[in-house]
Amino acid sequence: MFSPLIDELMSALRALPGVGPKSAQRMALHLLERDREGASRLATALATAVEGVGECDRCRTLTEQTLCSICANKRRNQALLCVVETPADVLAIEQAGTYQGTYFVLHGHLSPIDGIGPQDLGLDQLHSLLAAGGIEEVILATNPTIEGEATAHYISERAKKLDVPVSRIAHGVPLGGELEYIDGGTLAHAFSSRQRV
Amino acid sequence: MFSPLIDELMSALRALPGVGPKSAQRMALHLLERDREGASRLATALATAVEGVGECDRCRTLTEQTLCSICANKRRNQALLCVVETPADVLAIEQAGTYQGTYFVLHGHLSPIDGIGPQDLGLDQLHSLLAAGGIEEVILATNPTIEGEATAHYISERAKKLDVPVSRIAHGVPLGGELEYIDGGTLAHAFSSRQRV
Repeated sequence: MFSPLIDELMSALRALPGVGPKSAQRMALHLLERDREGASRLATALATAVEGVGECDRCRTLTEQTLCSICANKRRNQALLCVVETPADVLAIEQAGTYQGTYFVLHGHLSPIDGIGPQDLGLDQLHSLLAAGGIEEVILATNPTIEGEATAHYISERAKKLDVPVSRIAHGVPLGGELEYIDGGTLAHAFSSRQRV
Repeated sequence: MFSPLIDELMSALRALPGVGPKSAQRMALHLLERDREGASRLATALATAVEGVGECDRCRTLTEQTLCSICANKRRNQALLCVVETPADVLAIEQAGTYQGTYFVLHGHLSPIDGIGPQDLGLDQLHSLLAAGGIEEVILATNPTIEGEATAHYISERAKKLDVPVSRIAHGVPLGGELEYIDGGTLAHAFSSRQRV
């Protein structure tokens, strides 16, 4: 419908999550009509990030440095290691603002059906980190899904063999949530994990 | 929170319409974690489009060619000229699929308060096009807003001086719309523009 360059731009914009044909068209026309400077800046930012961003040597989160800012921060408690599935989870926990330890990012969860095994999640690297000593507690913060639970279980078994204490973050009714609207699985878990007051 | 390159990418993504901080974060992490190829393709598409896409010499729509595919198409009726505000409007009319004439894109509407006058809308170019002869009808398809109406009025006055017939697309209750949900302004217009059957 449009010229080849514009069609290609619309098609390339669909690589963005949540962007369908209509949004891609709106984005392409907006950038070309009203914000070419923003478009150039985005092109450069994308190219530099794809080129430069790799993984932190210690925790595997996304960074262009050898060590990410959290691993490199001397004031963080290096003896606490929180295992999460994605860099977005790191951000969510950081935004909560109370955790002062470090992280280990799996970039996924065990999923034999998709051919994702321990090596793909850097579990050998995690093993070396725990075997090297200095970690006093591993906090498992994988998602409370079947795969997340299986991954947490697998890691806890390996950590126990190394005599590193392991904990799992609490699951239950979220603060501010109304019981009426909480799913049955969460409620059942909240009951079975109840704590004496 | 993240490293500088990732922060810059998130910030650059906010140039896209409808993308706030949370979506920008999701997009950046998605591209870096799962679709670096798509990110590179998008970077190239953006850079090439910003570099290459200009305006059609005749109708001012976005294209990297001298004449856009519609103006260059010999089978389109060059004697019909539909004036619209944006390239997106051209696309909407093309998708309706019945109009066989050509277009003229204003890239906006008259808006003295924002300092947008006739020159910014290429109205001198439109004047030359009409003065050159060969246009049998100008169809005004600017938006039915105050500025769109003012722009349509201004263009119709100039076209009449050149003895070019001018028409305005019909406004009223959209097909498939239910009267109950149509705004009062549209209904009032539909009544005042009623046609004998």
